[in-house]
Amino acid sequence: MRTSVGRLRLPKTKGKPMTDTPSYAFLGPVGTFCHQALSQVAPPEATIVPCAGERAAMDATRSGRTRYTVVPIENSVEGGVTATLDSLAWGKRLQIVREIVVPVSFTLAARPGVTLDDVERIGTHSHAWAQCRNWMTDTLPGAQHTPTTSTAEAARLLAEGYDGFQACLSSAIATSLYGLTTLRADVADNPGAITRFVMLSLPGHLPEPTGADKTTIQVRLPRNHAGALHQLLEQFRTRGVDLTRIESRPVAGQPGAYGFSIDLAGHVCEERVQAALVGVYRTCDDVRFLGSYPRADGRANAIEPGTSDEDFRAARAWVDALFTQG
Amino acid sequence: MRTSVGRLRLPKTKGKPMTDTPSYAFLGPVGTFCHQALSQVAPPEATIVPCAGERAAMDATRSGRTRYTVVPIENSVEGGVTATLDSLAWGKRLQIVREIVVPVSFTLAARPGVTLDDVERIGTHSHAWAQCRNWMTDTLPGAQHTPTTSTAEAARLLAEGYDGFQACLSSAIATSLYGLTTLRADVADNPGAITRFVMLSLPGHLPEPTGADKTTIQVRLPRNHAGALHQLLEQFRTRGVDLTRIESRPVAGQPGAYGFSIDLAGHVCEERVQAALVGVYRTCDDVRFLGSYPRADGRANAIEPGTSDEDFRAARAWVDALFTQG
Amino acid sequence: MRTSVGRLRLPKTKGKPMTDTPSYAFLGPVGTFCHQALSQVAPPEATIVPCAGERAAMDATRSGRTRYTVVPIENSVEGGVTATLDSLAWGKRLQIVREIVVPVSFTLAARPGVTLDDVERIGTHSHAWAQCRNWMTDTLPGAQHTPTTSTAEAARLLAEGYDGFQACLSSAIATSLYGLTTLRADVADNPGAITRFVMLSLPGHLPEPTGADKTTIQVRLPRNHAGALHQLLEQFRTRGVDLTRIESRPVAGQPGAYGFSIDLAGHVCEERVQAALVGVYRTCDDVRFLGSYPRADGRANAIEPGTSDEDFRAARAWVDALFTQG
Amino acid sequence: MRTSVGRLRLPKTKGKPMTDTPSYAFLGPVGTFCHQALSQVAPPEATIVPCAGERAAMDATRSGRTRYTVVPIENSVEGGVTATLDSLAWGKRLQIVREIVVPVSFTLAARPGVTLDDVERIGTHSHAWAQCRNWMTDTLPGAQHTPTTSTAEAARLLAEGYDGFQACLSSAIATSLYGLTTLRADVADNPGAITRFVMLSLPGHLPEPTGADKTTIQVRLPRNHAGALHQLLEQFRTRGVDLTRIESRPVAGQPGAYGFSIDLAGHVCEERVQAALVGVYRTCDDVRFLGSYPRADGRANAIEPGTSDEDFRAARAWVDALFTQG
Repeated sequence: MRTSVGRLRLPKTKGKPMTDTPSYAFLGPVGTFCHQALSQVAPPEATIVPCAGERAAMDATRSGRTRYTVVPIENSVEGGVTATLDSLAWGKRLQIVREIVVPVSFTLAARPGVTLDDVERIGTHSHAWAQCRNWMTDTLPGAQHTPTTSTAEAARLLAEGYDGFQACLSSAIATSLYGLTTLRADVADNPGAITRFVMLSLPGHLPEPTGADKTTIQVRLPRNHAGALHQLLEQFRTRGVDLTRIESRPVAGQPGAYGFSIDLAGHVCEERVQAALVGVYRTCDDVRFLGSYPRADGRANAIEPGTSDEDFRAARAWVDALFTQG
Repeated sequence: MRTSVGRLRLPKTKGKPMTDTPSYAFLGPVGTFCHQALSQVAPPEATIVPCAGERAAMDATRSGRTRYTVVPIENSVEGGVTATLDSLAWGKRLQIVREIVVPVSFTLAARPGVTLDDVERIGTHSHAWAQCRNWMTDTLPGAQHTPTTSTAEAARLLAEGYDGFQACLSSAIATSLYGLTTLRADVADNPGAITRFVMLSLPGHLPEPTGADKTTIQVRLPRNHAGALHQLLEQFRTRGVDLTRIESRPVAGQPGAYGFSIDLAGHVCEERVQAALVGVYRTCDDVRFLGSYPRADGRANAIEPGTSDEDFRAARAWVDALFTQG
Repeated sequence: MRTSVGRLRLPKTKGKPMTDTPSYAFLGPVGTFCHQALSQVAPPEATIVPCAGERAAMDATRSGRTRYTVVPIENSVEGGVTATLDSLAWGKRLQIVREIVVPVSFTLAARPGVTLDDVERIGTHSHAWAQCRNWMTDTLPGAQHTPTTSTAEAARLLAEGYDGFQACLSSAIATSLYGLTTLRADVADNPGAITRFVMLSLPGHLPEPTGADKTTIQVRLPRNHAGALHQLLEQFRTRGVDLTRIESRPVAGQPGAYGFSIDLAGHVCEERVQAALVGVYRTCDDVRFLGSYPRADGRANAIEPGTSDEDFRAARAWVDALFTQG
Repeated sequence: MRTSVGRLRLPKTKGKPMTDTPSYAFLGPVGTFCHQALSQVAPPEATIVPCAGERAAMDATRSGRTRYTVVPIENSVEGGVTATLDSLAWGKRLQIVREIVVPVSFTLAARPGVTLDDVERIGTHSHAWAQCRNWMTDTLPGAQHTPTTSTAEAARLLAEGYDGFQACLSSAIATSLYGLTTLRADVADNPGAITRFVMLSLPGHLPEPTGADKTTIQVRLPRNHAGALHQLLEQFRTRGVDLTRIESRPVAGQPGAYGFSIDLAGHVCEERVQAALVGVYRTCDDVRFLGSYPRADGRANAIEPGTSDEDFRAARAWVDALFTQG
């Protein structure tokens, strides 16, 4: 499926590099929540490329096929998105240039004319089903689940006349794209749940610091013992750098070794973040910079006394002066 | 399906509490890798109860329906099993009494008479598909994936004559249970990959310490900032308690708050573990003990100088003596 | 000199152990600031034993000759009193049962009839001279210093008619004891300066906790490197125990090794202090308990959240319950 | 006394600034151990200025009267020299350019013709007496002490015919300067004891790094609590900077506040020392650089993995590259 969808255009020629208009790979097919995240940030003239899997989407940007990729990175209920974290950690380096937040809220949709009473089986992705289980138990206790490869695929199958299920749980954008009827909007077990998506590009430029930024890094520790992790955290603490997320991931082929995906409060343009990164780089086996970018929540980072850029510069000036005036 | 499977018996009367023979709930249906883990530890006379989902399995033990539950907790490639971790963290308290390790290695199976050349579509769970993708690209590049609710379900469907796919990727036990033919054994992208399962019971007895034990706890930090996590780790470090796993999980409904699931090297019978737990309990909002049990790898824990039971007892005796002899 | 001095009685028979009335060794001769500190705490019927040197005074209690010893331990200008600290650290163990604070303020005294204009040379101990140098420069710029073995010795010499100097700098009590005239009271370069004295006894009883107590310990570190001291401090920090004094002292015969004399805020009856001492005892080569006693300033110790006795007991009860209820 | 002493010349004109030949103030009078330390480093043509007190000696260099000052800073038995430490800490800033080590070993000397049997009283400084007390008890149990303002002063008094004592305990250089006879050489209670002296100049040039250097700093902490000192040490530890000495000193007029005099292993030219100093400067109320200079023991500093100059530069280059290549 490679046609214009809503206001977004799919690329006409597969493999042709994008030059003039921005292009975005994303976790497809069209109609996913990732598509919905993408639609919040892409300009009308953008070309979009749905991909089968987070890694495939990221590879589209790695290979130069698209300028950007949008993929989910963390769900406030399910936690980190493994495929995204691991491809960021171990694949060719990409850089996060923006974060996008989308509420976890499904639409129960069906073909026109179908009512809630007609629904015996519901098609959707296993994760979506898991996130609506309580709602289902309350509202449609007898409904059975038919797994599909994505929430959008369930909508597409319904739209094409498939009769293995009568309704689907998918995104609002999928309901609209496929001409389905909304049986229930805002279906969700956890009302405040959100999914965070990241927009990625090849390394090459850094978003300007805004005073409300995050920096994402990936660090590997030889063994995940108390001492090593403690020392890693000390590198942040001595420079007054706070963490907003830390996630451990096993390292493939190295039992007992863990990588850590970490979000720091601050931009790499800031002295305290640079000093912490220098310390981490010196003392860890492996560290990868994955971007500095504005926080979606716009919350300005607190700066502890003694850790502002001015404090760092004054301290360095003092040290430098020891060489000239003694 | 509630009949005797291989040497294991399924319960004849649903809901009747088990008294004489041990009973085990597990992540069903029969034929899953979890079933395979269970078969490594359950006695021949055991009754087994396949459940739809990790939480349902754990609830079977919580409600008294089974004495034990076996569920996956961590995959060396995919990381922690969210449903298990979250139910352990937030549901009624259960206790880990044993860990079981199963290699991640699939069997590509089909009905008798089918050959590799006949295979166009393969039924399996999405996670299994993800873990064999490279193998598929190399060996059966044209094969398509049909998702099923479990790897065992794919085997069952084949056995019942379903023709939506010609082969399934499932466990050796499922192949055998359903009378399928093995097209290829040991299918896996990551040869050394393993899944760790845990055997759970209601709180009430602790496995004896063996000198090669782990203790699992769940801790919540108000905000996942460098300082709070650093202080938590300090509670372990000052007592010489090492970590073998730490995983962060978002706390539902509290953006920015994280829970940590932690494996400590050591048994709660050991002084250094007790002292660390006292420290954690005093300083964290919420801490839950999830069991002390033998390590599957049997590796004895290293004990730093000054942190053996004798060291703790000698130190306490010294303090106690200050009150009598001054 | 072994006669009754003011309201205090000197022992009549050298070497005879004290049984009924309390006896006090102190840094003599009579008339020292230490004598003055002693007079703040000893009952009228007490017997006092002036000794030549801090160590000799402490040995009087060690040998059973006196029940108590009063010696200086820290001067707010000069710092720790080496002889006291080292004898506490390396001699037979004594225990601090009380601290006494005396302002550093001298009396410039002379024989009756002598005036300020007559003063060309002033007898006093070198330390006293050092602490009044600015005052001398301002008030008696031409005055020369004649060193004596103590400030009181200078007063005694004057009283006996010695004419090597015309005035002495000594304590108010010495001026009075020796019948001298005060030329100037409150002579001091540092108006707020104080000397802290400690009252010592053999180990055997602990003063009751008052909520405003200190605990003194002596710890030796193998090498005074950043890591070892850092880890020592961590033992206090993880239990919320604050320090009010830390002093390093070289270890005789072990270049590069240092002992630390440390005052903790809290009483050894308190759980957090006990837990910290257990940790220190386990991890340091050598640790010596030197007493828990009321603070002279009466300031109640701040207790961090999670470090009260109740917090410790609740945490231990929680750990204990893991063994019975699982 | 302002004449040529041995090979060293005293300045002829008081107050005239030194230009051509190096000039040295030191803790006088001539014949002290400080004089002996000075003679180990000063060239033959040097002019020397004995001063009354460490502070007066240091002020001679502060005012420009001498180019250098030599004063004692630490005794391996007595600990830090208060007057030197405090003048370094609070007076006009000076810089340590060299350290000098002198064994603590006294000469018992007398006028020609006097024998050990004639000795009833011994003149010397109180500190010297304290350091030979055991030797005296063993060798001359009946000998009495007459305090003098310095060990050299005792030698001078003897040489001038004073008869208040028959022998003096002083340095070998004093014995020689004053034409006395050695009754016993190498008198000492602690055979391995040493005194460390420092050579000071106005700030203005730094000794070249040798790979076996020390850096001395003075830091003030608001309150000497466990947390503040712990955080200070963390600034060193995260950069792999080791301490070789740490001494606390009360801060005049601020009860409970302490300054710390600290020797770091390393030269301020080294990256890890600079990074630690930047951290200390940012986070402490007051920090003063007191020099980087070769260690007297010539022992090369151990460099932890990840803390060499190359490690720091590589880490910074990595951070810098994030801005250009992304």
